[in-house]
Amino acid sequence: MTPKLSSDTSLPTVAMVGGGQLARMTHQAAIPLGVTLRILTDDPGDSAALVSPSTRLGKGSDPSTLLEFSRGAAVLTFDHEHVPLDAIRSLERKGVKAFPSSDALQYAQDKLAMRQRLTEAGYPAPPFRAVADVAEVITWGEEVGWPLIVKTPRGGYDGKGVWQIADAAVAHAELPSLFERNRRLLVEQRVPLMRELAALVARSPYGQVACWPITETVQRDGICVQTVAPAPGLSAERSAEIEAMAIRIATELNVVGVMAVELFDIGGRVLINELAMRPHNSGHWTIEGAATSQFEQHLRAVLDYPLGSTRLRAPHVVMANVLAGDVPKDAPPLDERLHHAFAYEPAIKVHLYGKEFRPGRKVGHVTMLGGAASLPDLRERTERVAVWLGSGAPLPE
Amino acid sequence: MTPKLSSDTSLPTVAMVGGGQLARMTHQAAIPLGVTLRILTDDPGDSAALVSPSTRLGKGSDPSTLLEFSRGAAVLTFDHEHVPLDAIRSLERKGVKAFPSSDALQYAQDKLAMRQRLTEAGYPAPPFRAVADVAEVITWGEEVGWPLIVKTPRGGYDGKGVWQIADAAVAHAELPSLFERNRRLLVEQRVPLMRELAALVARSPYGQVACWPITETVQRDGICVQTVAPAPGLSAERSAEIEAMAIRIATELNVVGVMAVELFDIGGRVLINELAMRPHNSGHWTIEGAATSQFEQHLRAVLDYPLGSTRLRAPHVVMANVLAGDVPKDAPPLDERLHHAFAYEPAIKVHLYGKEFRPGRKVGHVTMLGGAASLPDLRERTERVAVWLGSGAPLPE
Repeated sequence: MTPKLSSDTSLPTVAMVGGGQLARMTHQAAIPLGVTLRILTDDPGDSAALVSPSTRLGKGSDPSTLLEFSRGAAVLTFDHEHVPLDAIRSLERKGVKAFPSSDALQYAQDKLAMRQRLTEAGYPAPPFRAVADVAEVITWGEEVGWPLIVKTPRGGYDGKGVWQIADAAVAHAELPSLFERNRRLLVEQRVPLMRELAALVARSPYGQVACWPITETVQRDGICVQTVAPAPGLSAERSAEIEAMAIRIATELNVVGVMAVELFDIGGRVLINELAMRPHNSGHWTIEGAATSQFEQHLRAVLDYPLGSTRLRAPHVVMANVLAGDVPKDAPPLDERLHHAFAYEPAIKVHLYGKEFRPGRKVGHVTMLGGAASLPDLRERTERVAVWLGSGAPLPE
Repeated sequence: MTPKLSSDTSLPTVAMVGGGQLARMTHQAAIPLGVTLRILTDDPGDSAALVSPSTRLGKGSDPSTLLEFSRGAAVLTFDHEHVPLDAIRSLERKGVKAFPSSDALQYAQDKLAMRQRLTEAGYPAPPFRAVADVAEVITWGEEVGWPLIVKTPRGGYDGKGVWQIADAAVAHAELPSLFERNRRLLVEQRVPLMRELAALVARSPYGQVACWPITETVQRDGICVQTVAPAPGLSAERSAEIEAMAIRIATELNVVGVMAVELFDIGGRVLINELAMRPHNSGHWTIEGAATSQFEQHLRAVLDYPLGSTRLRAPHVVMANVLAGDVPKDAPPLDERLHHAFAYEPAIKVHLYGKEFRPGRKVGHVTMLGGAASLPDLRERTERVAVWLGSGAPLPE
């Protein structure tokens, strides 16, 4: 390496595996920083590939592709959890810097490993078991009571990979095929929850951490439809406790980058549901709603830059996902829906991902910032625009 | 054209001539809208070309290149004023929609045409003359008093194309060569001004207009170094008057897109200095500081979408340009300067344009949002970071 000159104005390249909306929004954040985001995807029509000139085509699961992809980049990072750990480990042995590292990422890739690790360390979670066959599920169900929630340790997202098992008969009917494809499953008790929360934290290799305000996430059929930040009705003390817990987890697991901790609020305390080690849907509101977005922060964290302020830009920030719906035949095309949305809400911030509208698919999100007085109204208005864009359900007068 | 189906989720393409930082930041704004920004530049290393996959290489002055470039785009627009009007007119005759149109753009391209048109319509400006030779300059100088300001009608920016002429002797020495290259020059009286202001307005083909708060711009050697929004000490009444004037000008000239009106504040009233019909340096603060940035608004305006809210996100927004300086030999490289800047000001928003650092060149800008109490401090801190990034002048403890 040639020594850096004082006139050196080069800035680093971050190599991100995956070309979905997270990579797309990370590219958007990389532009002002002057940092280059390089993207790996096998589909040139992918969300991020449509807007980035630094797209490489290839399989993110192939070690030699990954090695070539990492060459010249300061760090390798991920917009999803599907890169095999073995592939990341082989790169790490060759000196590639991967953030989060394979050691950390195993707990985002494998729900069972995450539950076991966090429970051993004393973190709260719903009661769970690792099970290897249907009989074990039934034995535990009879012992603690039905229904049970069954999850595949890997690969689930947006409600996929999760089943509610009502009783032994359902277990007999549904689970054998699952055990054919999964050596072990995670089974947990259904806890009566008031709502779901998310803690979003970023951590740098240096060890600096920064947490955004705790966010309420609203799920429908396992898919996040809305977030509200800061989470309504959460005291400063409880917020601080949850933030501190997220920071401890990030530190203990040596996470680098953004990490989301999905939480069940069971009234008075929280249980940890899942971890994600990348920018996360619960943090999309930070693009306009915080001084530093999760996408900028992820880049700063993996590059070991000092982290940015996570301060709110408004008393309330509401985000609603745009889910593609069954658009009625007589609904106007998206371009026209966008016109109406802008006329209806001049302050709404629209994010469309360039994705094909397949029913149920997240194809965008919208965000509104609001004053201190009007949260229920803000939530309703934000959601309305999201539903209108996604499925053409009419906007009221 | 095939009829649009209700399931049509395509969104339009905007074709922008020029690949500088304005196109770069417009691309950044196009990403969330799902709109495609296509860029024309003759340099693949241009600021916008570095971050956009929709770059076409070619000369923006060539009519056949422009026609090919416009094909399939909903509208043609510009990141600079250097596209010949004749070329735009020939496209318009072929049915290409150009915003701003050639009829509007002539007043941004030709300062003399602008001054004459606006003065005839009764808008205030410094006293001026169109002059064809040195004798005319001297006659007028002797009549109204020296010094005079001489400007080339076309092509000037960032202090280029502007000369102060102290007396007849200087006029004899400096101006003949200028008249060789310019049939006519604009000569104006130097007005004693308190400060400079800018009004930023967007207008759509439908006729909708939206104005951001009036901004104070601080110039040094003809280059904008800092902006403060809203302009300090400007009463609500005077702000409203200036906004109304900018809106009237945009409407009378049939401008479509963002227009900046550069103003001299001479105490109690303003004079119009120049017009720009594109996103403008005086509006870079809107990226974080307003609900809708000038770049998003320009796209919405030229596409005839309803315009977005121009509401402020904080009581004060300060922007400082990063001007490349004579970086000392022992100054750390840019990457390290960026680290220090982030550590020093965790809330600063950095925008680097990917441009080579040549002394005096605008290579980026930084923005800070601040509370009601601390404007002088905010200005000093923002400027400090800009100077540090641009030239390595040390940050104080």
